Amino acid sequence: MAEGFDLGNQLPELVRQICVSYWADPRTHHIDKRFLPSRTQIVRALELLIELIYPGYWGRQNLTQYNVSYHVGELLPRIGEILNREIYHAFCYQDEMQGRSPVGGADCREKARRLVLRFLEQLPAVREKLGGDVQAAYDGDPAAVDTSEVILSYPGVLAVTIYRLAHELHQLEVPWIPRVMTEWAHAQTGIDIHPGARIGRNFFIDHGTGVVIGETTEIGESVKLYQGVTLGALSFPKDERGRLLRGFKRHPTVKEGATLYANAIVLGGETIIGQSAVVGGSVFLTSSIPDGCTVTIKTPELSVRPGKNQSHHTLEPLSLDFQI
Amino acid sequence: MAEGFDLGNQLPELVRQICVSYWADPRTHHIDKRFLPSRTQIVRALELLIELIYPGYWGRQNLTQYNVSYHVGELLPRIGEILNREIYHAFCYQDEMQGRSPVGGADCREKARRLVLRFLEQLPAVREKLGGDVQAAYDGDPAAVDTSEVILSYPGVLAVTIYRLAHELHQLEVPWIPRVMTEWAHAQTGIDIHPGARIGRNFFIDHGTGVVIGETTEIGESVKLYQGVTLGALSFPKDERGRLLRGFKRHPTVKEGATLYANAIVLGGETIIGQSAVVGGSVFLTSSIPDGCTVTIKTPELSVRPGKNQSHHTLEPLSLDFQI
Amino acid sequence: MAEGFDLGNQLPELVRQICVSYWADPRTHHIDKRFLPSRTQIVRALELLIELIYPGYWGRQNLTQYNVSYHVGELLPRIGEILNREIYHAFCYQDEMQGRSPVGGADCREKARRLVLRFLEQLPAVREKLGGDVQAAYDGDPAAVDTSEVILSYPGVLAVTIYRLAHELHQLEVPWIPRVMTEWAHAQTGIDIHPGARIGRNFFIDHGTGVVIGETTEIGESVKLYQGVTLGALSFPKDERGRLLRGFKRHPTVKEGATLYANAIVLGGETIIGQSAVVGGSVFLTSSIPDGCTVTIKTPELSVRPGKNQSHHTLEPLSLDFQI
Repeated sequence: MAEGFDLGNQLPELVRQICVSYWADPRTHHIDKRFLPSRTQIVRALELLIELIYPGYWGRQNLTQYNVSYHVGELLPRIGEILNREIYHAFCYQDEMQGRSPVGGADCREKARRLVLRFLEQLPAVREKLGGDVQAAYDGDPAAVDTSEVILSYPGVLAVTIYRLAHELHQLEVPWIPRVMTEWAHAQTGIDIHPGARIGRNFFIDHGTGVVIGETTEIGESVKLYQGVTLGALSFPKDERGRLLRGFKRHPTVKEGATLYANAIVLGGETIIGQSAVVGGSVFLTSSIPDGCTVTIKTPELSVRPGKNQSHHTLEPLSLDFQI
Repeated sequence: MAEGFDLGNQLPELVRQICVSYWADPRTHHIDKRFLPSRTQIVRALELLIELIYPGYWGRQNLTQYNVSYHVGELLPRIGEILNREIYHAFCYQDEMQGRSPVGGADCREKARRLVLRFLEQLPAVREKLGGDVQAAYDGDPAAVDTSEVILSYPGVLAVTIYRLAHELHQLEVPWIPRVMTEWAHAQTGIDIHPGARIGRNFFIDHGTGVVIGETTEIGESVKLYQGVTLGALSFPKDERGRLLRGFKRHPTVKEGATLYANAIVLGGETIIGQSAVVGGSVFLTSSIPDGCTVTIKTPELSVRPGKNQSHHTLEPLSLDFQI
Repeated sequence: MAEGFDLGNQLPELVRQICVSYWADPRTHHIDKRFLPSRTQIVRALELLIELIYPGYWGRQNLTQYNVSYHVGELLPRIGEILNREIYHAFCYQDEMQGRSPVGGADCREKARRLVLRFLEQLPAVREKLGGDVQAAYDGDPAAVDTSEVILSYPGVLAVTIYRLAHELHQLEVPWIPRVMTEWAHAQTGIDIHPGARIGRNFFIDHGTGVVIGETTEIGESVKLYQGVTLGALSFPKDERGRLLRGFKRHPTVKEGATLYANAIVLGGETIIGQSAVVGGSVFLTSSIPDGCTVTIKTPELSVRPGKNQSHHTLEPLSLDFQI
């Protein structure tokens, strides 16, 4: 065993230097501030929301038509209580960071309460959309056995579920919390969807690791993405003082029924992927493609170096025949 | 602090609407069903299996040649008990979802018990294969210090360990559980291996984030993959009613000794990567390459825009000289 | 319910075969060994370090200028104690694995104590660097709202924070622990930075999933990477006995102010990305590019197959106009 460890008389100087480093840089501490929403509590709210949205799959088991309303009646106030506190704190935090006074007044409390209620009222509509997403996952993957498997094990379904919840809060202009929610999903799934993105029904992301969907992306109905697809920004204009402009449309639009295969990169706020278009694997695209088109890398030019004792070999041309 | 939150007289209507949304869509609830295997318990079984497979590295410490058999004798029945319950539930779940009656009869119990025993009997053989995988990781990565480091910190080794366990259950035709196991590994590592894939000995995935290995992939011995490699499907044929055909071979075959570098995409059930072949980074491939060949992107055509005050620059041609 | 499960008289034979498999392969067990650093304790130290580095953001709330030094004075000895024990164990583990005797002598204890102190003394300097990284993340992402959001939800900031801590221990030649730290970050974020890499100030990785930065990479100040970027090795020279050579420079150098977009792959120890150079998305590069250059994939040749009832369409040429 290692012996006990004691910093001895060096402790005060170590403490002093670390505290000095706090005062030297206000960007990396949150000292003398009263408000910060709790990441732990936000994740707890998400877990309860998932239990509410897919009853019987997550959390409490043995739900029946007779007991389920009591379950919902018990879950909803718990979710409301957490969200009310965290949304209120998010507003207070915003006031405090921006130097407004007073921080978190009565109107702020009232606003948090109103937004929670509006969010909870949206849940049946969110559930309806998620039903379409679950079906799209089952329909889109020949390896899927049933919709239960999809709900319980597909990372794409988890990421889209969290996105749809976070997007509702984003629409209600709740600060800070929606992004924490989607970054939690990102950590679980490798799928990074900004809560500001607008995504239509029947959306499916297969496998999903590495997918990035930027803040101002617009996606129509029945779109399908594979792992590693980026819907990103092409360039970041700056203002006259050299600071990034924030908020304008800088991510692509993907229309109804389009499919983007693995590692496709599509960039730019004016780039439009047309209706039912297909973007092949590894395609890098910064201009629009029209409805119904299939865009693939042309027969890749491959240099083939035969092994020892083998004659030279010519590759057959690629025959990518997508059947969507 | 936020004041207490109360939904007041709005609670009953909120509850009612959410319950209405349950009855509107049977795809997203599991109400009035008796059986569902427990994801939590399946993950618990995996943790105990990892402790059994790499004794002294995970879980209990201070194992000796004198006490280790008691440790194994204590672990095995715990693993068996969990798997027996979850496999039995998986069969009951399957019966219930498919409307068979009775659900989970005596033969079902007997079948679960028999499969657990056969699975446990396979563990020494699984361990033997994993020894080769651990060695392949050490041999294949100049940054590896020893095999302990590889076992305790390489995501590729964790993903392959879970895959080999899940694949045994898949071979025994255990429903549902193998996929939950590999999706757990996917969440931990970013590596998505379908339990149905067939993978030979001495398999190494380096770094690993974004790797996808589809259900009907076949991989020979001593194959090495890097991060972002996809072994995927090219197209999904449908039946006369427009539904996806499930189960046929739609993912590639990779033969003994082949290496696939970062972000290579290989698609299609008839695509064969020959013995000792090398597929370079970012190559997109939908046709076969013969034994011993090296396939790389040809000198990429790069447009180089020199910065201000600099003369035009010509890139040297790529000289990819893989030394495998 | 499944009935109780009992392996009955088959248990002894199962136990025996598993123990036989242990003795058959020394690579996959850690039996009859006394020392192994604890992964759980190393992660615990990281959590406390994050709390110390970003006070008020993680862990204890309501810190003020009056109470913060007590908080630091309480955290530091706890961190020191854990690190002292784990570093001492890492040295003992190394002695034991390499057959040195005695294992973990007095000089070993003294060395662990000295290294912990030197590590703790570096923390203010590490914090200072992280301030620049946090600012770079805010400045580099138009979707960022404030530096708090960046600290609490950006995976790139978490990965760089853990890297900078692990790199200090790597510089102090602490075995084993730095790699466990960065692999923990890899599991959380999908970003794989080897602790041996050398990375300058104001470093930002956006989105991040799939990024790989190899052991001997050198990165200058104010470099920006996007998701899926690989800074990797090109080939692995072997010694005369066919074993990999370890430790020589085999990963690229990226100079000050360079930007690498999504899925760019740069390989080789002699490959240099010049100052303020830009490497476009999906570029695959194994040769150097000079200062100030922008390197992108040339107008990709895309085969466009129009949908039914649509005339043929010609793609506009790509006009990648990066504005950095």
